[in-house]
Amino acid sequence: MNSLPQPADLTPHIQQREVPLALLDALKTRFAEQCSTALVVREQHGRDESSFEAPPPAAVVFAESTQDVVDAVKLASQFSVPVIPFGVGTSLEGHLLAVQGGISLDVSRMNQVLAINAEDLTVTVQPGVTRKQLNEAVKSTGLFFPIDPGADATLGGMSATRASGTNAVRYGTMRENVLALELVSASGDVIRTGTRAKKSSAGYDLTRLLVGSEGTLGVITEVTVKLYPLPEAISAAICSFPSIEAAVRTTIQIIQLGIPIARVELLDGKTVRMVNGYAKLSLREEPLLLMEFHGSPSGVKEQAEAVQEIAAEFGGTAFEWATTPEERTRLWTARHNAYFAAIQSKPGCRAISTDTCVPISRLADCLLDSVAEADASGIPYFLVGHVGDGNFHFGYLIDPDKPEERQRAEKLNHALVERALRLEGTCSGEHGVGLHKMDFLLSETGLPAVNMMRTIKRALDPKNIMNPGKIFTL
Amino acid sequence: MNSLPQPADLTPHIQQREVPLALLDALKTRFAEQCSTALVVREQHGRDESSFEAPPPAAVVFAESTQDVVDAVKLASQFSVPVIPFGVGTSLEGHLLAVQGGISLDVSRMNQVLAINAEDLTVTVQPGVTRKQLNEAVKSTGLFFPIDPGADATLGGMSATRASGTNAVRYGTMRENVLALELVSASGDVIRTGTRAKKSSAGYDLTRLLVGSEGTLGVITEVTVKLYPLPEAISAAICSFPSIEAAVRTTIQIIQLGIPIARVELLDGKTVRMVNGYAKLSLREEPLLLMEFHGSPSGVKEQAEAVQEIAAEFGGTAFEWATTPEERTRLWTARHNAYFAAIQSKPGCRAISTDTCVPISRLADCLLDSVAEADASGIPYFLVGHVGDGNFHFGYLIDPDKPEERQRAEKLNHALVERALRLEGTCSGEHGVGLHKMDFLLSETGLPAVNMMRTIKRALDPKNIMNPGKIFTL
Repeated sequence: MNSLPQPADLTPHIQQREVPLALLDALKTRFAEQCSTALVVREQHGRDESSFEAPPPAAVVFAESTQDVVDAVKLASQFSVPVIPFGVGTSLEGHLLAVQGGISLDVSRMNQVLAINAEDLTVTVQPGVTRKQLNEAVKSTGLFFPIDPGADATLGGMSATRASGTNAVRYGTMRENVLALELVSASGDVIRTGTRAKKSSAGYDLTRLLVGSEGTLGVITEVTVKLYPLPEAISAAICSFPSIEAAVRTTIQIIQLGIPIARVELLDGKTVRMVNGYAKLSLREEPLLLMEFHGSPSGVKEQAEAVQEIAAEFGGTAFEWATTPEERTRLWTARHNAYFAAIQSKPGCRAISTDTCVPISRLADCLLDSVAEADASGIPYFLVGHVGDGNFHFGYLIDPDKPEERQRAEKLNHALVERALRLEGTCSGEHGVGLHKMDFLLSETGLPAVNMMRTIKRALDPKNIMNPGKIFTL
Repeated sequence: MNSLPQPADLTPHIQQREVPLALLDALKTRFAEQCSTALVVREQHGRDESSFEAPPPAAVVFAESTQDVVDAVKLASQFSVPVIPFGVGTSLEGHLLAVQGGISLDVSRMNQVLAINAEDLTVTVQPGVTRKQLNEAVKSTGLFFPIDPGADATLGGMSATRASGTNAVRYGTMRENVLALELVSASGDVIRTGTRAKKSSAGYDLTRLLVGSEGTLGVITEVTVKLYPLPEAISAAICSFPSIEAAVRTTIQIIQLGIPIARVELLDGKTVRMVNGYAKLSLREEPLLLMEFHGSPSGVKEQAEAVQEIAAEFGGTAFEWATTPEERTRLWTARHNAYFAAIQSKPGCRAISTDTCVPISRLADCLLDSVAEADASGIPYFLVGHVGDGNFHFGYLIDPDKPEERQRAEKLNHALVERALRLEGTCSGEHGVGLHKMDFLLSETGLPAVNMMRTIKRALDPKNIMNPGKIFTL
């Protein structure tokens, strides 16, 4: 591991490139009312859920087809102007900010479900389809799409950030679940990667190179993902613990025993309080695990019994069941809204999210020291974790107008990442690098690997127009 | 889909580059007896299990450490001479042939298991460790590594070809199971990709770009893979069917119902006869499915009952169980040796292997017409299939001295690939492109995607020294 830079260095460097009027004219001519330069529209496309700020893009193009994307990219390329793909704006890492100027390419109108192949457990969608929309569309087939970041993100955005969520412990992340993509490259070529076959050894795995590339290699215009049969039986449970450590040790044992749990989510007592307030629930305000079991009725029973036994050994009490779909939906909606519950608990605040992920045996080491540090700092925070994957998030709640708060939060984040890397983990489990973790990435993977990424980027986007200034500096 | 070239075009183009004596001298000086120019050694490293032939490499370097690999690559780079990584030589697609001359870099002596992290279900090995050696090394931990190509291949080679095997239907392929790699790049840099964390969104997924890159982007010098707990209960079964179609339709239904079967392998009657002869078994010489179920005792029972019911509907009979570990081992060893059984059934023959993989709903369409064509051709063949993944292999057994046999076999292969691509499948499920499928890859993915691969290759290996002439022409 290389040494980490100091928190003060993390402020994004804003280096706006000029957007010539000739480009704006050409976009207006080609796209008419699909192109907006209204300040309110540009401002809405110039921010995301991160705490960063930058001047808005010079224009927003609302693409309605792959051809629209091709034409917008070709015009931008002609003028060497940055293009920032935009879905619904839920990035937590500054991916959508026009730090080098340019235009925002909004694909949210490309929201058609193109082909449901229920008999193959696959579906092909346009990039603006959101995860909830997708699940609604496939509902009648008895199948579902498991990947669920907190927000109702688009499949394009989820592909671009290699997103995951609460079900990843059982079903994997976008890395495992995207089968094929259509991409508009930096030169405006339409590239198809992958097929609907479940596996392939046919050439470089461009699909997985693009999944997680954060818009820096092109604009995703079509996504084919795997679906799964809705489990015959589903059972959810809540278990309270005397300490975070007890909840974490329970989780470690569940995973090490290979119990195929579908979800195992940690909330600390403070976060439970925020969630109770926001979602009108009355969960015990103690560290708790929210769990879900998928399988046959007897399989679910077996899993739940095994987990209950492990939890009891670590002092887990009040094992409560949510068996009706309504109860389960309420519970998971509350979990997904933890971020918004936290934001609302401190009016005007912004959250600085951490996203480390470590091997499961290192989870207690990584988490407990970080909790102690956060408590000592006095900064309010929420803590939620996809702990079955070794991934958890602190959200430090800061006043964006108080630089010293940001600096204290970044110092905590810095210490946490340093710890996670020492424990053979990663700085980002699922949110991506964006603006926030460029230095962390360098520390994690070392200069040779980042240089390999840079070489690929330069070769595929020689004018550096695709979402420049993200993941690494060039 | 683009139109496929005619079979005659598939012969590899051999364009030897000169290997200067100065390089051979430098290698001898640096590597002493770790470098051989003996013809018998070079010839052994100049072929693989494919039916292709090319002049042998000019020298073989036996690397014993990452530093050895670095030094060999740097010397080769200095003279712009090709480097062909070599494990145990079991490629089926000509990956190991020195079609542009150069040196073979044998990593089989780099065969240490570096770190077993049983509590995280991961293991890190050198690239020369074979899959059987790995499973032997982790045996005492109660864990296993599921990926099992027919041959006892090395982890380096399996990573390079994105291999899979009989367990992939449940556990995935090398794509899903490699967590991290160490690579020596074309310029001799040591690059580390990935961490031991189960998931990550930290930058480009270099790990998965390298998995399946067939040695064309560098030499893999370390591999970290996932392990799995040995299932509490394992049960294997053999079921005979009145027709290949009945076996295939049974498989399709198993997969569509989401039954988590661990293995489901098809053999046609002729192949069963070959296997019986080679392995001294007495399986019924009819189309059959070899299956395995993993889970808790009750889970295994549930799965097996459900499958038995489906099989019965399609006329499956003689459901026989192999419950002891010895019986199971015998059965799966026989399956893994099907290739060698077939080769031995026609002395002096070579096998031309097909490797298509289609979405499960298209499996019957793809397979049955191809069986009819193969039968009509009169060419002897074996047929085995990882049918749960939609992947199967014909091995057309040809006399290598009779070009007309090769041409007839390639014509069958050609028709099969064309069919698979039309059915939204891939030309290669698990063997890789190598020399054999370069035109198929182009037809499958289209010129823009292959050009994207070429751009990456040129950027990362500007002198085109890493296993040149494989996957695509430059």
